[in-house]
Amino acid sequence: MTADLRDHFARILTAPVFGHLATVRHHGSMQVNPMWFEYDDAGVIRFTHTTKRAKYRNLQRNPHMTLEALDPDNPLRYVEVRGRLAEVIPDPEGAFYVHLAKRYGETDPHAPADRADRVILVMQVDRIGGR
Amino acid sequence: MTADLRDHFARILTAPVFGHLATVRHHGSMQVNPMWFEYDDAGVIRFTHTTKRAKYRNLQRNPHMTLEALDPDNPLRYVEVRGRLAEVIPDPEGAFYVHLAKRYGETDPHAPADRADRVILVMQVDRIGGR
Repeated sequence: MTADLRDHFARILTAPVFGHLATVRHHGSMQVNPMWFEYDDAGVIRFTHTTKRAKYRNLQRNPHMTLEALDPDNPLRYVEVRGRLAEVIPDPEGAFYVHLAKRYGETDPHAPADRADRVILVMQVDRIGGR
Repeated sequence: MTADLRDHFARILTAPVFGHLATVRHHGSMQVNPMWFEYDDAGVIRFTHTTKRAKYRNLQRNPHMTLEALDPDNPLRYVEVRGRLAEVIPDPEGAFYVHLAKRYGETDPHAPADRADRVILVMQVDRIGGR
């Protein structure tokens, strides 16, 4: 996938922009939230999250995830990544939260108050598209 | 709903920011696209679209729509609107496209080349939330 990734898709996925993550709620409606993320060339995207929120429960029921992000340099371009939850990794010190906070420009981030419930959501990428 | 709308939700929904619209694809995965939109105090949101795209077909099968938009003035705030497709209005001259293009800052927009297929998607708002 990496070699095929069009340049602007790679640029968007490695920029510190908010992603817009859709998950499926019970009864079939959707939840969409802005999320920090980190794209990995190995074909996964990682998010910091907690086990106490609706999105976590949504993903336990239905692992589909779709992430969309706008190109920060060109409002006519965006990337949409479809995939599914592959793994949930405990992050009880909030280390990945701190890692992402630095990626998004915080200068001296602290572990979050809810670090005991923190997890890393690992999304397996099935398809990258967009415009 | 209008009276209950928190100030920043109203500010986001009336700003010319991109919305991120989720619809459900066949097999239960989701599509998320950046969209122009116009919020109406009467409790609907209107989009310009065409009858030839995947999103239109998604909505014929499953009318659920969720729109999320970031606060342009505060990256920690956003609004999420859940609803469903209530009506599809033909727009064969692309007049609503032109109306939205002006709202989003184009100075002299023309009707789009695909105007014969243009429609207005009318989303009935069920719930406004966010942070």
